[in-house]
Amino acid sequence: MSDLDRALEAADAGLDKSLERLFALLKIPSISTDPAYRHGCREAADWLRRDLAALGFAAALRETPGHPVVLAKHPKPGAPHVLFYGHYDVQPVDPLDKWETPPFEPKIAVTKDGKKIILGRGSSDDKGQVMTFVEACRAWKAATGTLPVGVTMLIEGEEESGSINLPGFLEEAKDELAADAALVCDTTMWGEGRPAITSSLRGLIYEEITIRAASRDLHSGMYGGAARNPLHVLSAIVAALHDEDGRVTLPGFYDGVPETPADVREQWRGLGLDAEAFLGPIGLSTPAGERDRMIIEQIQSRPTCDVNGMWGGYTGAGAKTVIPAEAHAKISFRLVGEQDPAAVRQAFRAFVRERVPADCSVEFTGHKGSRAIQVPFDSPALTKTRRALEDEWGVAPVTIGSGGSIPVVGDFKKTLGLDTLLVGFALDDDRIHSPNEKYDLESFRKGARSWVRILAALGQ
Amino acid sequence: MSDLDRALEAADAGLDKSLERLFALLKIPSISTDPAYRHGCREAADWLRRDLAALGFAAALRETPGHPVVLAKHPKPGAPHVLFYGHYDVQPVDPLDKWETPPFEPKIAVTKDGKKIILGRGSSDDKGQVMTFVEACRAWKAATGTLPVGVTMLIEGEEESGSINLPGFLEEAKDELAADAALVCDTTMWGEGRPAITSSLRGLIYEEITIRAASRDLHSGMYGGAARNPLHVLSAIVAALHDEDGRVTLPGFYDGVPETPADVREQWRGLGLDAEAFLGPIGLSTPAGERDRMIIEQIQSRPTCDVNGMWGGYTGAGAKTVIPAEAHAKISFRLVGEQDPAAVRQAFRAFVRERVPADCSVEFTGHKGSRAIQVPFDSPALTKTRRALEDEWGVAPVTIGSGGSIPVVGDFKKTLGLDTLLVGFALDDDRIHSPNEKYDLESFRKGARSWVRILAALGQ
Repeated sequence: MSDLDRALEAADAGLDKSLERLFALLKIPSISTDPAYRHGCREAADWLRRDLAALGFAAALRETPGHPVVLAKHPKPGAPHVLFYGHYDVQPVDPLDKWETPPFEPKIAVTKDGKKIILGRGSSDDKGQVMTFVEACRAWKAATGTLPVGVTMLIEGEEESGSINLPGFLEEAKDELAADAALVCDTTMWGEGRPAITSSLRGLIYEEITIRAASRDLHSGMYGGAARNPLHVLSAIVAALHDEDGRVTLPGFYDGVPETPADVREQWRGLGLDAEAFLGPIGLSTPAGERDRMIIEQIQSRPTCDVNGMWGGYTGAGAKTVIPAEAHAKISFRLVGEQDPAAVRQAFRAFVRERVPADCSVEFTGHKGSRAIQVPFDSPALTKTRRALEDEWGVAPVTIGSGGSIPVVGDFKKTLGLDTLLVGFALDDDRIHSPNEKYDLESFRKGARSWVRILAALGQ
Repeated sequence: MSDLDRALEAADAGLDKSLERLFALLKIPSISTDPAYRHGCREAADWLRRDLAALGFAAALRETPGHPVVLAKHPKPGAPHVLFYGHYDVQPVDPLDKWETPPFEPKIAVTKDGKKIILGRGSSDDKGQVMTFVEACRAWKAATGTLPVGVTMLIEGEEESGSINLPGFLEEAKDELAADAALVCDTTMWGEGRPAITSSLRGLIYEEITIRAASRDLHSGMYGGAARNPLHVLSAIVAALHDEDGRVTLPGFYDGVPETPADVREQWRGLGLDAEAFLGPIGLSTPAGERDRMIIEQIQSRPTCDVNGMWGGYTGAGAKTVIPAEAHAKISFRLVGEQDPAAVRQAFRAFVRERVPADCSVEFTGHKGSRAIQVPFDSPALTKTRRALEDEWGVAPVTIGSGGSIPVVGDFKKTLGLDTLLVGFALDDDRIHSPNEKYDLESFRKGARSWVRILAALGQ
C-alpha cells in the first residue's frame, strides 16, 4: 500500500472525528463584522491554533489592528512548499428567523433526495472548506508521520469584512510566507460530482459618473426642447459602450486580452454550457455578450462592461414633468489577461468626455480597480492538481475562470510573487451568506481526500 | 369721453378700494388640498359670490363632491358672451418659516428697486389675477351701468388640488356655460411691461416603462458578459429616441405638427430670445432641440421628448457589482397641433417593443395624455385682444405657446366647444407655489385696465 493510499484510508477512518472537530469550530460564533463577536473571532482563531499545533505545526496567533491571523508552519526541507489560505470568520446570521436550525448549532441533516448535509453558519464558507485541508494534513500525519510538502497555513479572520488588515500583514510577514505556490479553498465545484480549479479571476474597474446639465431641475413644459437633458446624454454614452456584436467599443479596450488556448476552449466546449443551461435558471435565453464567443468565454475569459446602476430625475409614483439637472451611473468593466486597469479607466473617461456637450460637465469617482489574475494554463502545479482531482472524482476537473474578485489572490501575486490555485468543494446551492448555509457531507469527505491527493501530487 | 375712457377712469379711481377688496379675499386661507382649510375655501367662494352679486351678477355657489364652484352670470342679449375662468383656492404655505410676512396677512411692500408689490399667498395665483377681471367688470358697471359683453364667471376651488371635480361640473352645467369664447387669467406676461397672450398649449403623453431581464438581480462577475442588462436595453432605447439633429425618431411622430405662420415666426424672431438669454440663467449655453429651429419654437411650437426619470440597479454609496433584473424610465412627449396622443403612445410602445430582446419583457404604464390646444392665430377674438393689450401697454403683446398644461382649456374645448384665450399679468418672479408669493401692483392695476379694454374690444 502506498503512502497515498494509507493517507486516504486514514482520512476515511477519521471521518467521524473530523466532523466532531468541524462542529466544534462551527459552534464558535466568529462574525467578524460585528464588534459583539470579537471574542468569538479570537476563540475560533485560537481553536485553530491549538488544533494545528496538535498536528505538529508551529502555530501562533498574529495580531493585526483587527482580528488575529492564524499562522502555522510545517516545513519540509528539500520539498516544495505551499501556502494555504482560508478564513475562520463568518457572515452575520440575520435574518435569524429564516434559519430552520440555530446557525451556531451545527447538525447533519438529510435532504429530500437522501443527501447528507452539514447545516450551520460557516459550514461551507469557509470553516468547512478550511477543515478539508486541515483534515488532509492530519491524515498524512497519521499515515506517514509527515506531510508530502512543506505547508504554511494562513487563516485570516476578516475576509467577510473586507480583509482590510491582510495586505499589511502580508507585507509584514513576507519572508515567513515564502512558498512555491499558494492554495485557496474558498470556491465552488463545477457542479455536484464535478470538481473545478479556478485558475483565473477577472479584474475590475468600477467608475461612477455624474453628468450635470442645467443648474437646477427644470419644468419640461417650459424648457423641454431647448434644455439639455442629462439622462439623454448618459443614455447615449451607455448605448455607445457596446457595438451590435456585443463588443465593448472603448478604443484600446481589447489590448492585452489573451486568446484562450485551443485545448482549454475545447475542454470548455465539451462542458456543453449552453444558453438553456446557464441562462434558463435565471429566466433568460439569449446570450448578450460577444456574438462569436461561447457563453463560458463570455463569463470567464472575455472582458465585459456592465452598468450596475443608473439614476436621475423623478423616480417616485405617478408623473412629474421634470428635466433633471443631473444624471448618474455606476459602470464597471471586468478585465482579463494583461488589460491595464489604469488604461481602461483613462479610455473610459476620455470616451465619456468626448460625448458630454460643452455646456454640461461630468464628474468621475473611481471605485475599485484590480488587474486580472491568471495562472498559466500550463503551470506544473495546475497540471498536477488537475490529475489529483481527476483521480479522486473519476472525472477531469473543469479549469474555470471566476468573475468574482478574491482580493487575496492579487495580494499574493503582488506581495509574495505567488500564483494561486483555487480549489474548493462548495456547491452553488450552499446558501453562503444566507440562512441555512450548508456543506454537503460529500464535499467535506471527498474534499479532504482531494487535498490528500493534491498534497501528494505537489510533492512529486 | 367714450364709454371705454370712462371705464378706465373708473378703474383708476377705484384702485384703493380694489386693493381693499383683494386684501379681504387674500386674508381667507383657502388651501384646497388640506382638509383643515375646508371652511376657508367655502368662505372665499362665498366672499366672491357676494361681491359678484353686489356687482349685479346672478351669482351662486354650486356644490361639487369637493369645494364649491362660484358661478355668476351677467347676460347681455344681442352681444357676444364670454366665459371667464379662474380659481379661488391657493397652494399650501409651507415652509412657513421662509415667509417674511405671514402668508394670509397681505401687505404692500416696496422692492429695492422701488417697485410696489402685493405680498401674500394667492396674490398672484390666482386671487390677484381673478380680481383684475372682477375689478374691470366693476369699472364698466360704474361707468356705464352695464358690461360691453355678456359674462359668465366660473371660479373654481380645486385648481391647486387637480381640478378633479371640474370636468364633471362642466358636463353638468354645460348649457349654463354656453359662450362665444373663454378667457382664463392664470398665466404670465412675457416680461415686465410686455404682455402676452398664450394661444397654444402643448399636449402631453407620459409613459412609464419597466424592462425586465433576468428573474433576479445577478452578480456581474458571475453573469457579466452573458446576461442581458436591462439598463443597457433601456439606454439604447432612450438614445434612439432622438437623431443627431435633435429630431424625435418615432415613426409618424411629426404627423399633424403644423408649421407656424411666417408672421408669427417673424414676431418671435423679433423677441430676440437667444441661447444666452434663455439658457444662460439656468447654466446652459447650447440649445439641445431641433437644430433648424429657433429656441422659442423648440419650447413652444415644436413637439419634444424628454426622459423625466430613469433608474435601475444599485444607486447607493460605493460599488456594487450587480446586473439588475429591471430598469425603469418615465418618458414624456410634448405634443402640438393635431398630433394624436393615442397615436404617439402607440408609436412609442411599438418603438420600445421592437428594441426589447426576445427574452426580456416590457411593461407600460400610461400616465397623462392630452391633446395640444391651439387657438387659430387668425381668430377674431385673438386679434381683438391683441389690439386691446397693445393699447394698454404701448407695445404689441407676444403671442406665445405654453408647454405647461392647463387642463381646463382642454375641457372647455371638449365639453363646451370653446376656444380659450389665456391672458395673465403675472411675472415669472412672482414665486407662486413658494414662500413670499407676490403680485406687482402694476400687474394688478394695468391688468384690470387691460380687461376693461379687452371687454370693450370683444363687444365690438
